[in-house]
Amino acid sequence: MAHGGIEAVLARIDADMPAATERLLDLLRIPSISTDPAYAEACTEAADRIVADLAGMGFDARRADTPGRPMVVAHAGDGAPHLLFYGHYDVQPVDPLALWDQPPFDPVVADGPNGPEIRARGASDDKGQMMTFIEAFRAWIAVHGRLPCRVTVFLEGEEESGSPSLIPFLRANAAELTADLALICDTDLFEGRVPAIVTMLRGLLGEEVTIRAASRDLHSGMYGGLAINPIRVLARILGGLHDAQGRVTVPGFYDGVREMPDAVRAQWQGLGFDHARFLGAVGLSVPAGEADRTPLEQLWSRPTGEINGIWGGYTGAGFKTVLPAEAHAKVSFRLVPGQDPQAIRAAFRAWVTAQLPADCTAEFEGHSAGPAGEMDTGHPAFEAARNALAEEWGVPAAYVGCGGSIPIAGYFKTVLGMDALLTGFASEDNRVHSPNEKYDLRSFHKGIRSWARILDRIAAART
Amino acid sequence: MAHGGIEAVLARIDADMPAATERLLDLLRIPSISTDPAYAEACTEAADRIVADLAGMGFDARRADTPGRPMVVAHAGDGAPHLLFYGHYDVQPVDPLALWDQPPFDPVVADGPNGPEIRARGASDDKGQMMTFIEAFRAWIAVHGRLPCRVTVFLEGEEESGSPSLIPFLRANAAELTADLALICDTDLFEGRVPAIVTMLRGLLGEEVTIRAASRDLHSGMYGGLAINPIRVLARILGGLHDAQGRVTVPGFYDGVREMPDAVRAQWQGLGFDHARFLGAVGLSVPAGEADRTPLEQLWSRPTGEINGIWGGYTGAGFKTVLPAEAHAKVSFRLVPGQDPQAIRAAFRAWVTAQLPADCTAEFEGHSAGPAGEMDTGHPAFEAARNALAEEWGVPAAYVGCGGSIPIAGYFKTVLGMDALLTGFASEDNRVHSPNEKYDLRSFHKGIRSWARILDRIAAART
Repeated sequence: MAHGGIEAVLARIDADMPAATERLLDLLRIPSISTDPAYAEACTEAADRIVADLAGMGFDARRADTPGRPMVVAHAGDGAPHLLFYGHYDVQPVDPLALWDQPPFDPVVADGPNGPEIRARGASDDKGQMMTFIEAFRAWIAVHGRLPCRVTVFLEGEEESGSPSLIPFLRANAAELTADLALICDTDLFEGRVPAIVTMLRGLLGEEVTIRAASRDLHSGMYGGLAINPIRVLARILGGLHDAQGRVTVPGFYDGVREMPDAVRAQWQGLGFDHARFLGAVGLSVPAGEADRTPLEQLWSRPTGEINGIWGGYTGAGFKTVLPAEAHAKVSFRLVPGQDPQAIRAAFRAWVTAQLPADCTAEFEGHSAGPAGEMDTGHPAFEAARNALAEEWGVPAAYVGCGGSIPIAGYFKTVLGMDALLTGFASEDNRVHSPNEKYDLRSFHKGIRSWARILDRIAAART
Repeated sequence: MAHGGIEAVLARIDADMPAATERLLDLLRIPSISTDPAYAEACTEAADRIVADLAGMGFDARRADTPGRPMVVAHAGDGAPHLLFYGHYDVQPVDPLALWDQPPFDPVVADGPNGPEIRARGASDDKGQMMTFIEAFRAWIAVHGRLPCRVTVFLEGEEESGSPSLIPFLRANAAELTADLALICDTDLFEGRVPAIVTMLRGLLGEEVTIRAASRDLHSGMYGGLAINPIRVLARILGGLHDAQGRVTVPGFYDGVREMPDAVRAQWQGLGFDHARFLGAVGLSVPAGEADRTPLEQLWSRPTGEINGIWGGYTGAGFKTVLPAEAHAKVSFRLVPGQDPQAIRAAFRAWVTAQLPADCTAEFEGHSAGPAGEMDTGHPAFEAARNALAEEWGVPAAYVGCGGSIPIAGYFKTVLGMDALLTGFASEDNRVHSPNEKYDLRSFHKGIRSWARILDRIAAART
């Protein structure tokens, strides 16, 4: 078939925006927090809702249960190329709840600095972004009766909790899920204005460490000075995670890390990244990473170590002169190509253990371990998508890095041999993972239009 | 009057033990946690209960309200000397509640390693200890009709939360509360077997610090590497609170600290302290304080710095890749004679602030600040009490130091000009401030007998 009907699809999208927005709000009302078992049923409800929606527009859609949260798998259209669209319906926890201006699962559309915005947990990450391609499918089918090529929708419900079921599921369903290209919608516009295709993604390694000392909590008046305090041990060890130049001190951490090609470095310099504006928007001013790296390198192409949570002893109102029996921290590392997550996990554990004083033990719990990803920009779909995005946004689309970890891109490559193209329409001011998350209505609207154009261009390029 | 009737008093105490134990259990059922405002009413209930008990045995007793938790003040007897007995009816919080073998405010008497023991929060610290002198008064009055000298009972309800109302109350009621000597029951037997009079008490300074960075929580994927993480700042600063020899690194911290007199050092060496047994009882083996000090010095005569609580970021189940906006710690210092709490508070704050990187601020909340205390062992009551204790326990009583802070002794001296004698019958295995606190029934029984003997000896020595 001819794919010239893009203008009609775009018009249909514009006309359907009020209904599309209501559908997103309905989905945002479901508290599908994946990291907390208390919300397991809500995750299933969200998956069921999306399965019904896709089935209603003609997809062969099903909920696929796993030992954790369910997947959604749906198929429609035929003809080359076969495109797989990925998103995730699960969301981050909402604490600290007191800092939300409204209930996180009672979404509203209200005016924001960039025009109307949708406010709720998941509005941006990733329900709002995920619905951009689903709404594009709906409009395309409404206008043309069917999609311009074969499409598989694959949605996950454990992205915010380390995706424990993902690799087994990909392996068990490899034939069904292996397409010519994966399209992933979970990333940002560059500086909130330039459409961007991510070609470099950091990986993520999560570790939880518990330091134990005495067999019970002790009174610091009775034991203080003589008994080792595990909070002190934890602070001393983790306080040494970085050297004075901001480099991670774990031995072997930088093994395999490559310098950026000059061509990439030049393109990034051309982006004119305004780090003062970027940091200023959240009350900061000074880049805090490796002192000898540019701000974009610190964000996109250099590995990091962070303490994401720490707790021990008495943390309530008032004071308690306790020497606790144990202290805890959640530590994560953002990884770049060349770093082996499992090797770094082992190195971190050895580094902590080697620093333990007498009478202390360390126990580790491994969380997510996803490698970094680099995309093959030689794939013809990349140029098609760049052109489609430029048409919609009126400025050339950029190839960028991404500081975040979207391990799915790496797994698609390593498990299924499938390349991935990542683009998305979020902004860095969307407060994802924070209170008062939002998604600009403009991102939602132009995101849907962008996917319609990308679908049109990629299908045309291949047929 | 003659004070020869001690044997009759001791017999009365022995006969009344079942009833005395029931009275203590009733008091332990009241959850008088002073540090948490949710338990303010329970504190008032505990004060009222004790006032009624004292009034019932003939004391002129009253509850004296303060801006915080109430005091109990009661008077009985006449004639020299005028003795003031101090204890506190408030208790520590109970968390972590899951580690208790029974509800902390549902006391039981059960067999323990040293015979029957009373198990509950406050069983030892300080309701059980406080009731030793109250039960001694009851027996004395039952046998003799009145006490052998003038006695004032002064009980506090804020000892576990920094005693904010204490100094104003002492000042406002100085005439009523100034006696010839204060007797304080909140300390231990030495090694659970030797009666001990504390002549050196460490002071306590509490500080809460909050490090703030970004204006909101950030996603470590989007900002990690570029944005400063306040947990990392807090860990680095507090991880440097001690040097490799275990000395506190805050500048000026050791200003004014004196070396122990040789005579005291010799007496302490003579105690034969078994630090391996002391630490081994709580699963430790190696003294963790200043490397060049003996274990007893580390516990009794050297100042310390400890992190009693730390928290920040995501601490729930699973993982959240957050860079939090703030991180917190509760830090305390045990102080020795010569150290000025307010000077050390200022030095700590300056030390933290000087280490803050760009974009970070520190906010401090001051908690308790009590100086260390040294007792005047030349007071004639000390020799009388030593002899009384030796009679009851069958071994010579020791003059010892105490690692804990009982700031009341310092305040009695500085505010009222009143000397204090501290003795008590707790054991270091009582798990005070920890889950499963207990008080040996033997401590309770012989503690009551000890006070009857001390009352007899001191009254006889002065008349």
